[in-house]
Amino acid sequence: MHTLHHRDRRHLGWDASLAPAVEIAPGSSVELVLQDAFGGQLGPQATPADVAALDLGAANPLTGPVAVAGAEPGDTLAITIDELSVGELAWTAVIPGFGLLADEFPAPHVIVSDVGGQEVAFGGLARLPTRPFLGTIGVAPAEPGSHSVIPPRRVGGNMDCRDVRAGATLLLPVEVAGALLSAGDPHGGQGDGEVCGTAVETTAVVRLTVELRHGTAIDQPQLELAPEPVVERREGPNRRLTMGVGPDLLAGARDATRAMIELLGQHGVDPADAYALCSVAGHLRILEVVDAPNWVVGMEFDLDVLA
Amino acid sequence: MHTLHHRDRRHLGWDASLAPAVEIAPGSSVELVLQDAFGGQLGPQATPADVAALDLGAANPLTGPVAVAGAEPGDTLAITIDELSVGELAWTAVIPGFGLLADEFPAPHVIVSDVGGQEVAFGGLARLPTRPFLGTIGVAPAEPGSHSVIPPRRVGGNMDCRDVRAGATLLLPVEVAGALLSAGDPHGGQGDGEVCGTAVETTAVVRLTVELRHGTAIDQPQLELAPEPVVERREGPNRRLTMGVGPDLLAGARDATRAMIELLGQHGVDPADAYALCSVAGHLRILEVVDAPNWVVGMEFDLDVLA
Repeated sequence: MHTLHHRDRRHLGWDASLAPAVEIAPGSSVELVLQDAFGGQLGPQATPADVAALDLGAANPLTGPVAVAGAEPGDTLAITIDELSVGELAWTAVIPGFGLLADEFPAPHVIVSDVGGQEVAFGGLARLPTRPFLGTIGVAPAEPGSHSVIPPRRVGGNMDCRDVRAGATLLLPVEVAGALLSAGDPHGGQGDGEVCGTAVETTAVVRLTVELRHGTAIDQPQLELAPEPVVERREGPNRRLTMGVGPDLLAGARDATRAMIELLGQHGVDPADAYALCSVAGHLRILEVVDAPNWVVGMEFDLDVLA
Repeated sequence: MHTLHHRDRRHLGWDASLAPAVEIAPGSSVELVLQDAFGGQLGPQATPADVAALDLGAANPLTGPVAVAGAEPGDTLAITIDELSVGELAWTAVIPGFGLLADEFPAPHVIVSDVGGQEVAFGGLARLPTRPFLGTIGVAPAEPGSHSVIPPRRVGGNMDCRDVRAGATLLLPVEVAGALLSAGDPHGGQGDGEVCGTAVETTAVVRLTVELRHGTAIDQPQLELAPEPVVERREGPNRRLTMGVGPDLLAGARDATRAMIELLGQHGVDPADAYALCSVAGHLRILEVVDAPNWVVGMEFDLDVLA
């Protein structure tokens, strides 16, 4: 099995003209050693000043690309995440100008986590189940040129979908010969939405197995979810749901998030900490999207994670 | 305990000038006997023609209002759903002009379900866990006049939130003296989103206990979720997630739903049936809403429910 190390094969944009680091056959595997989404810029003593000084042009480095022999536009690439082990330190940052409530949280903020085994010690604030996943994994878009790694696309990328975890199979539409698969941005956990803009950001080693599927073309990414149970509470007396009711889903997501930050304030959590907590442990759900003209977005949070 | 029957105290709009059917004190309970959201217009042999002939002006009848002694604007009304038993027959309809993909599903369609104990027999298509909840529960808005029961509001109403179930406590902001609580639209189950516009629509008897909370005013509805486990699979080899990636969450929800309908088609389910299935068993999640300019909406579905 080939191993690619980020030191050797690191890139910062999606680009169909990048030479593949390695070519593998369908049915075979590759191991990737991944940097964190800050490219190693934050250390264990990270401060808000370090966040303010981040070089965002170096954010979200990818390792790859891996060419898949025989992959052609119109094919579907099926990528199974066989194994994913994340680092022992992680960072969650509120970066000025970035995040769902960027206008309300202009100041830099950072929380350093110890990631160990089953649990993430989220600063001194909370204890969360460790749920490793890949924030970014995708293939090259056909459109020429280098494309930012920040927005996700129909060919995947920075989807920040917490179900892209060990045991799952990600399906991506292939747009260029060889597909040109890359990955990065490993997370030790995240809520649906990643509202403050970052998750439990850490390093990882991942083993992927690729297959090609012909015939049923897909328009956007799909997942065959991991069969193993998600380490997730769906019971207990302290789960809360805040809502945002109105004609715009984005405004609803903002309202539900703001309400959860206020609710956490009643439990003694400062607003910036609460915002970061919502990003790693609050889950945005679309509760209804048909009772025109108002839709309902909810944020679910389990207060039992609080330290 | 007072019992209100829909035959006696049925109304079709939110209206602060409605005389309360009964006044109860904080800490006490009321039982409501609720009609289904179609107001009894669909029977066990319901056909698409019956759906086309529905009088939508009579949709979503409410039972109430119940005045809560001492409730004043600025208070929070806490409503605990002590017990909720739903009927044995239910309807899920695709109503022309209504629903997330209304433009793509112009024809009326209906599926009749047997709701028994732990399971909903969804036509001959699927077997779903029975998860009774109230689609509509709210208090009167301060604004004078009669307001449609279809859109939800900051004071609740037709939220179609599947967590408004036995064991949960719903918090609503009070806008008028007495609060004027009403409920209706009981469901035997639903997915997050209710994408086709209807759920497992049935009748119910519900017992509610109300409390008043002063001090921490809320802007929109909140829920203290039921402590009992949700009857919900979070494991198994056949769970799928489709995605919609793009700059608009509503378009993302449409893309994810359309992709799941296509995926169900690969398993032999006709499009209109698949649309209805997504409404009762597909869950819309906001996977990320920060990687500008593209957000990711997912629809989760467990293929194991298919018959």
